[in-house]
Amino acid sequence: MPADAPLRFVILLGSLRRASFNSAIARALPGLAPPGVTIERLGSIGDFPIYDGDVEAQGLPAAAVAMAKAISGADGVIVVTPEYNYSIPGGLKNAIDWLSRVKPNPFKDKPVALQSASVGMLGGARAQYHLRMSFVMLEACVFNKPEVMVANASQKIDAKTGELADAPTREIIAAQLLAFAAFVAAHKRGALTS
Amino acid sequence: MPADAPLRFVILLGSLRRASFNSAIARALPGLAPPGVTIERLGSIGDFPIYDGDVEAQGLPAAAVAMAKAISGADGVIVVTPEYNYSIPGGLKNAIDWLSRVKPNPFKDKPVALQSASVGMLGGARAQYHLRMSFVMLEACVFNKPEVMVANASQKIDAKTGELADAPTREIIAAQLLAFAAFVAAHKRGALTS
Amino acid sequence: MPADAPLRFVILLGSLRRASFNSAIARALPGLAPPGVTIERLGSIGDFPIYDGDVEAQGLPAAAVAMAKAISGADGVIVVTPEYNYSIPGGLKNAIDWLSRVKPNPFKDKPVALQSASVGMLGGARAQYHLRMSFVMLEACVFNKPEVMVANASQKIDAKTGELADAPTREIIAAQLLAFAAFVAAHKRGALTS
Amino acid sequence: MPADAPLRFVILLGSLRRASFNSAIARALPGLAPPGVTIERLGSIGDFPIYDGDVEAQGLPAAAVAMAKAISGADGVIVVTPEYNYSIPGGLKNAIDWLSRVKPNPFKDKPVALQSASVGMLGGARAQYHLRMSFVMLEACVFNKPEVMVANASQKIDAKTGELADAPTREIIAAQLLAFAAFVAAHKRGALTS
Repeated sequence: MPADAPLRFVILLGSLRRASFNSAIARALPGLAPPGVTIERLGSIGDFPIYDGDVEAQGLPAAAVAMAKAISGADGVIVVTPEYNYSIPGGLKNAIDWLSRVKPNPFKDKPVALQSASVGMLGGARAQYHLRMSFVMLEACVFNKPEVMVANASQKIDAKTGELADAPTREIIAAQLLAFAAFVAAHKRGALTS
Repeated sequence: MPADAPLRFVILLGSLRRASFNSAIARALPGLAPPGVTIERLGSIGDFPIYDGDVEAQGLPAAAVAMAKAISGADGVIVVTPEYNYSIPGGLKNAIDWLSRVKPNPFKDKPVALQSASVGMLGGARAQYHLRMSFVMLEACVFNKPEVMVANASQKIDAKTGELADAPTREIIAAQLLAFAAFVAAHKRGALTS
Repeated sequence: MPADAPLRFVILLGSLRRASFNSAIARALPGLAPPGVTIERLGSIGDFPIYDGDVEAQGLPAAAVAMAKAISGADGVIVVTPEYNYSIPGGLKNAIDWLSRVKPNPFKDKPVALQSASVGMLGGARAQYHLRMSFVMLEACVFNKPEVMVANASQKIDAKTGELADAPTREIIAAQLLAFAAFVAAHKRGALTS
Repeated sequence: MPADAPLRFVILLGSLRRASFNSAIARALPGLAPPGVTIERLGSIGDFPIYDGDVEAQGLPAAAVAMAKAISGADGVIVVTPEYNYSIPGGLKNAIDWLSRVKPNPFKDKPVALQSASVGMLGGARAQYHLRMSFVMLEACVFNKPEVMVANASQKIDAKTGELADAPTREIIAAQLLAFAAFVAAHKRGALTS
């Protein structure tokens, strides 16, 4: 266990479909995490209304406040998401838009790792690069590589059990989690004033 | 009036806030359109639930079906939108995600023009380039230039009347609408088999 | 043969390596084109100096003038390129930068199709989306789908003969060329004033 | 002076034009740096040939080897660049493509800040977001905010002296350099194993 452990990561899931490939990946994460790292799901993006500045003026939705608090308390965030129409799913972006209105900004200086899965050959890559742009605005610290882009996802999730069965996919995810834990630990050390 | 007129355009608005800068622009469009061009608002992105494949399996929301039909019947679509977190507003993207599930795809071969306004200095540019990527997937024909990116929008909309007051902004929008009308007319001529 | 044929396309190749996967694809294109379509290579991006405004002030390089003329005379441009560092190869972008300085702009209203190949799993997708942004500035008409992104290119080119051997890749390219020819033909019809 | 100082930054300049706005900014940087920070120019992107894998097979150009060494020895890199055709200047990207072939990768884990200037209203923003994508591949640590995008650059540089005269621009650059120095210092602390 690294000296900086234990580390607590939270998952922001970009899909609402029960049998979604990305929720299968999210379920697999705790079992693929290195020792000393715990990983839990945040609330659902389905609990957020469509962003409306007039609604915001009446007060932030409870879902936004609660999710922001959970993110603020975590050592890192793992976004696990499909790609819709070559970009971020609207529902996920909508949750991020609400979260960005919470003060203080829960993503500021927060380590973030990205994972995506799709039935296509690009594995959600386009959604990830758009997310990276949003996270510049939000001043998050987005982890670089290895990138996790699970292409042809329907062949990698067991249709009956909903388990992430594909060994190479499990390996790349475990490798990312291990490297991300080191990234987060370095980030924490760096934040300490010497 | 061009030989191909009359042309009917519809506006897809990316903001729900009543006093939004982008709704001010949307209201100004009919008055800035060239002769023979009519411009109407589509329904609201606030009428769409957060996309969920399990909900879709029960049937598409009425809002998606109605908006898709209105788009299919129009000669062109004008997206007028703010930029949230350096990308497409989640609510707008969510509506597009639902629309993309309607068959036939209402955006296929549809001319689309983009306009954006923001209080920042980039005028929503980043949202536009992400929209352009989604429209590749959707096989729309997105108009190139002049681009309409209204920076420092709070200085260009009259705070009391909500009118788009800034003359250079009105001119660039009128120029885009004129060029877009010619683009749409050429597109219609091209679609005719000789 | 379509009524609008014959059509003449030119290839802008983004790689200089003799045995490059993308040059293998470029060589295959004439044989995959629909009847009535001819496809020829433009000059080399290696003939352009690094762009320098002070050099430009002395006169445009002959390579830029010649390539711009060839593009202006063609019915469509096919960019065939690798991806370097998640973006457009510098050498290809440098050629485009020079071409953009020629008057009149050779890409204006010019139909453009994109093809890319890489040894990675994304097949050069990231280079294509960056190219699409440059072509907004240049006011080209970029074809949408089918997209041609040849992943794992080393498995699809015969290492001995340098031939594009993979049947599904040949099919998707032939399908793009056929659809692009229809796109170009519609574009030409649309450009005629009625 | 911060405990982690002195810090040494190097500038990678994306323009070759003598009187370029971006070289004016580059010249201003040492004078805007916080105490304990020195800033020097790297070699010229004009010294690199157009990337060619066959040339590389004969050996890396001396310019690439020298620049990679200078980057490896620095605490941080500041890219100062124009935007060409809505993306990275080809010449700058070409230098980065060559640098990416040096082993070990000089950008790996290297803090990078981005600055751009253009005569347009977006100040080179589009070049910066494309650069950010390349730096994901290169595993650099790109600084987030404040972003430095100098719009309408011709009004901010004194045409006679070539000096960066605009006070707000000088302030935002100084603010970025200060924040970037803190970012680099934290990065160095984090890299130390505890």
